[in-house]
Amino acid sequence: MDIVVGIDIGGTKTKIGLVTQDGNSVTQTYFRTKEYPDLDDFLNKITTTIEELKQHASQKINVLGVGIGAPNASSRRGTIENAPNLLWKGSVPLVQKLKERIKSPMKMMNDASAAALGEMLFGNAKGMKDFIVVTLGTGFGGGIVANGQLIDGFDGFAGELGHIDLTLGDGRLTGLGVRGGLEAYVSATGLKRTILYMLCKYMDESRFRNIAYTDLHGEDITKAAEEGDPIAIKAFEYTGKILGFALANFTAFTQPEAFFLMGGLTSSGKWIFEPTQKYMEENLLEVYKGKVKLLPSGMVGKSAAISGAAALIWSDHT
Amino acid sequence: MDIVVGIDIGGTKTKIGLVTQDGNSVTQTYFRTKEYPDLDDFLNKITTTIEELKQHASQKINVLGVGIGAPNASSRRGTIENAPNLLWKGSVPLVQKLKERIKSPMKMMNDASAAALGEMLFGNAKGMKDFIVVTLGTGFGGGIVANGQLIDGFDGFAGELGHIDLTLGDGRLTGLGVRGGLEAYVSATGLKRTILYMLCKYMDESRFRNIAYTDLHGEDITKAAEEGDPIAIKAFEYTGKILGFALANFTAFTQPEAFFLMGGLTSSGKWIFEPTQKYMEENLLEVYKGKVKLLPSGMVGKSAAISGAAALIWSDHT
Repeated sequence: MDIVVGIDIGGTKTKIGLVTQDGNSVTQTYFRTKEYPDLDDFLNKITTTIEELKQHASQKINVLGVGIGAPNASSRRGTIENAPNLLWKGSVPLVQKLKERIKSPMKMMNDASAAALGEMLFGNAKGMKDFIVVTLGTGFGGGIVANGQLIDGFDGFAGELGHIDLTLGDGRLTGLGVRGGLEAYVSATGLKRTILYMLCKYMDESRFRNIAYTDLHGEDITKAAEEGDPIAIKAFEYTGKILGFALANFTAFTQPEAFFLMGGLTSSGKWIFEPTQKYMEENLLEVYKGKVKLLPSGMVGKSAAISGAAALIWSDHT
Repeated sequence: MDIVVGIDIGGTKTKIGLVTQDGNSVTQTYFRTKEYPDLDDFLNKITTTIEELKQHASQKINVLGVGIGAPNASSRRGTIENAPNLLWKGSVPLVQKLKERIKSPMKMMNDASAAALGEMLFGNAKGMKDFIVVTLGTGFGGGIVANGQLIDGFDGFAGELGHIDLTLGDGRLTGLGVRGGLEAYVSATGLKRTILYMLCKYMDESRFRNIAYTDLHGEDITKAAEEGDPIAIKAFEYTGKILGFALANFTAFTQPEAFFLMGGLTSSGKWIFEPTQKYMEENLLEVYKGKVKLLPSGMVGKSAAISGAAALIWSDHT
């Protein structure tokens, strides 16, 4: 059977799957990225892992190609550039070096852009020509489709929406002392920082007065909101307000038909979707009001990152 | 000879020209838009004006089509929607009604998007696949080209960059009491408002302490800056700072190779280009630094609005 190898390179895990034409993995696995600080070792590990997956498959596998999603990936150059979460520094010619090991068509793209292609091929964006996927995990990523095409940018770095700064440079910083942009507010990490902000701003009772920042977890914040914790509720409202405001701004750029939210933060459900929807609509320019959908990703059951990476190749075959 | 009729519908003037394949007008004229409050009268005036231009041309004219640039135009629907500067209210089916009078291929687009196509066909963006045109006149418009295509948006209203708000809703308002966005800062009007802000914030001597807001003109502000007026110099620095910050943000969206600035405010030359360049570079994400050009439009001698409108049709013939 025809399959595409989908590889998602993340700061913690590298996930690999054999993906069929409907976006599902016949088999998949992962290993820990940081156990391979040497790039050649990492690439050898990828190569052997793919071979193992093929052997485990119940049918004979015909690999059409390899799609890779990675942070700070340049689609035009096949490189990963100075990714803060990865151990390999500088400009890493990943595609070129992996091609020395695997003789298949190969494409790499930043993970959120890959997710957008996945959403178009396998998810809830089927048939849409203008939409934006926003990934809300540890960070805030963006994948933009306009005129039915993924927007790459001049050298492949379009869609870094988490680095857009709506505070005129006056907002939160990143760990590196540079301005943080939206990501410092709207992400799993941003939500935790907002808990601190709310604990500082208000004197409400909250379970979070007894929990140190390091011990904060997203699921606990959702649980607290459900149980009526006022600091958790305020933190979600604030997060959704900033995200809604941002999506209203993004609409004035490429006017998408829909935004799809995916990633860890979206498992908070209505706590993030409801304020986002409200503040987006409130801030949309008159000409856009009532026309922009806010939707959950349709990739939830499909191991979105692997399927998205595979979509880079499958999109050439459909 | 083959020509395309280019029509630029503005709040003050409607300009019409017969545009050749190199983007120049063999002949052109204008009339005052507000003298035709009735839409049918306006469309009749356009029709007769085109006939007159054809008769004035020294050669026999073969019209390939009619391209129209207008504010608040939906390229997908051929309508002008609630344009604040125009007298016809609601949704105006301009293309449909003009086609009843003129039997030619016809396309309409918002004026800044038309300008972007013009820049690509006739101006300084020849050969570029990813760029953004920013028009800085009474307002702030945007035309986005990515992957070599103009971005339309879901129903044709992409590129309303002047309505992006980088102040989280805390900034200047428009005349209508709604949030102003970038346009309230970076435009001919925005610069005048910033003169007031600087007069209020600082106590420097300035010629503008003796001039009422209504009597302020852009050329005078440029002249004052050249003569060392500290309020004029601060106003340009502030305007360029906000524009530079905005362009750095826009880069994280579609990663253009270049921004082209056009419109009245750009006639201030270095007073607007230099601070914009400085603050754009300063605020670019590491991965974009040194890669984004800030350029003047190449349409200066070509009656940019008419040529841009004509580019809507010429782009199908080249």
